[in-house]
Amino acid sequence: MKIQDFNHQIEIRVRTFDIDMQGIVHNSVYLKYLEIGRIEYRRSYGYKILKSGQFNDGLTVIVAHNSIDYNSPAHIDDVLIVKTKISWIKNSSFCFEQIIVNDKDTVICDGMGILVNLNPETKMPEPLPEKFIHEVQRYENNLELKK
Amino acid sequence: MKIQDFNHQIEIRVRTFDIDMQGIVHNSVYLKYLEIGRIEYRRSYGYKILKSGQFNDGLTVIVAHNSIDYNSPAHIDDVLIVKTKISWIKNSSFCFEQIIVNDKDTVICDGMGILVNLNPETKMPEPLPEKFIHEVQRYENNLELKK
Amino acid sequence: MKIQDFNHQIEIRVRTFDIDMQGIVHNSVYLKYLEIGRIEYRRSYGYKILKSGQFNDGLTVIVAHNSIDYNSPAHIDDVLIVKTKISWIKNSSFCFEQIIVNDKDTVICDGMGILVNLNPETKMPEPLPEKFIHEVQRYENNLELKK
Amino acid sequence: MKIQDFNHQIEIRVRTFDIDMQGIVHNSVYLKYLEIGRIEYRRSYGYKILKSGQFNDGLTVIVAHNSIDYNSPAHIDDVLIVKTKISWIKNSSFCFEQIIVNDKDTVICDGMGILVNLNPETKMPEPLPEKFIHEVQRYENNLELKK
Repeated sequence: MKIQDFNHQIEIRVRTFDIDMQGIVHNSVYLKYLEIGRIEYRRSYGYKILKSGQFNDGLTVIVAHNSIDYNSPAHIDDVLIVKTKISWIKNSSFCFEQIIVNDKDTVICDGMGILVNLNPETKMPEPLPEKFIHEVQRYENNLELKK
Repeated sequence: MKIQDFNHQIEIRVRTFDIDMQGIVHNSVYLKYLEIGRIEYRRSYGYKILKSGQFNDGLTVIVAHNSIDYNSPAHIDDVLIVKTKISWIKNSSFCFEQIIVNDKDTVICDGMGILVNLNPETKMPEPLPEKFIHEVQRYENNLELKK
Repeated sequence: MKIQDFNHQIEIRVRTFDIDMQGIVHNSVYLKYLEIGRIEYRRSYGYKILKSGQFNDGLTVIVAHNSIDYNSPAHIDDVLIVKTKISWIKNSSFCFEQIIVNDKDTVICDGMGILVNLNPETKMPEPLPEKFIHEVQRYENNLELKK
Repeated sequence: MKIQDFNHQIEIRVRTFDIDMQGIVHNSVYLKYLEIGRIEYRRSYGYKILKSGQFNDGLTVIVAHNSIDYNSPAHIDDVLIVKTKISWIKNSSFCFEQIIVNDKDTVICDGMGILVNLNPETKMPEPLPEKFIHEVQRYENNLELKK
């Protein structure tokens, strides 16, 4: 992942309850930071998440896979920058690639999540709408459309 | 609160992600421990919580108040004992009194929570059912029925 | 508590992992929001929390008491305003009073926390430094100095 | 992963604060469940985690990588079974493979974590002790020793 490939970023400050007894952010907490990045990424397109868990453009997604490589620990009160992009779209699923750096440009971790679009009623996977694909194509420079 | 007044107790082990940078359980985490105690207290009556948030005897409650006094810090891997009782019932609300001790009988904290019974549809307070009151009366030695 | 008595406020957005199965912010999460408010309150004085858990003016505090009254539930994606003040100081302890409202001015909850100043080495309570008391006196309109 | 390959398992009950607004366990929470499994796995060898974050056999590890495939959602009050094994050891790192099933044998998720042994003082990777390798060899049927 190259840092310059990311068009979207947010800042998150590390809080007392994010730290574990080793004095560093607990490994599970980064999945929360990544999710905040994903939701703010969608907000930058103009969409927000509703009480139902659905976004207000009708998209209902679940997380099918997450992976994280932890590079350097983050500490209390650090301001972290979460960078987010969609790297590929494939029928009913798509992939978030993300990287978290601190304000000294140290890479804290990078992560990858695969999300699946569900029919809100049957809860079964269904193809992503054309509108979604076009919006991501306009926003991302290197989007891969997988068959 | 006297320790011998509690008829119900459960054990909870302190986990890595419960600890903060001071090496002790974070103050917000005790509210989670107290809630586990409250749900297991109800399970000891034969009831469990459903996907809707309602218990399977029809009870739908929300937390109206919580307070905690922190006495002594708990540490990683400690086995804590959460003791729970209902101290009073009043029309549509009731009060959990709880105490958490460690396995050396050190008092870690004591807490108090007031819960309110809701009509599951209107979400407005409604009187607690007679069945609930009688069950608590049978279980608790010093239950106070407030007017 | 009167809303106009608070000189300090921050915004916090409710996140997916803050919500429970009733679709509302879990009762324990508000203690996290209140703690963020308290740390940002101190940051507005120019102080920040260090890896040791101590603030960079030397203050080492622990939470001795927390209480919350829950008034109205907060929901996903709500932007909450956490208002914080110190209402009294007494020898080695002081009291945060806080209120959380949403962007429609609905009161979500109000909370109160008592913190105790510790000697960083002995971990025993010790009188709050004069500097701290004077800074709070300058910032708060209605500070009570308890004997 | 074959379920019968796991010699170690623990039970975890899903709690109210583990659930998100979709009524299912939040994706980040499974990393907590996996970590509980890993610590209890080590306890089954006779070791426990200390206040320092070190285990009482001297092992100091950090998480270098985590990945999870989410198969089926878990719900409130579910009793989950977390199965844990070490699948390979390599100089200073080793790999936990884990699977979580519910009490109807539905696979909820499977996960993989790579941990790195650190010198407790320099915090730099160092070879895993022979004692650790021999203990795992005795416990696991299909341990791979990587070069």
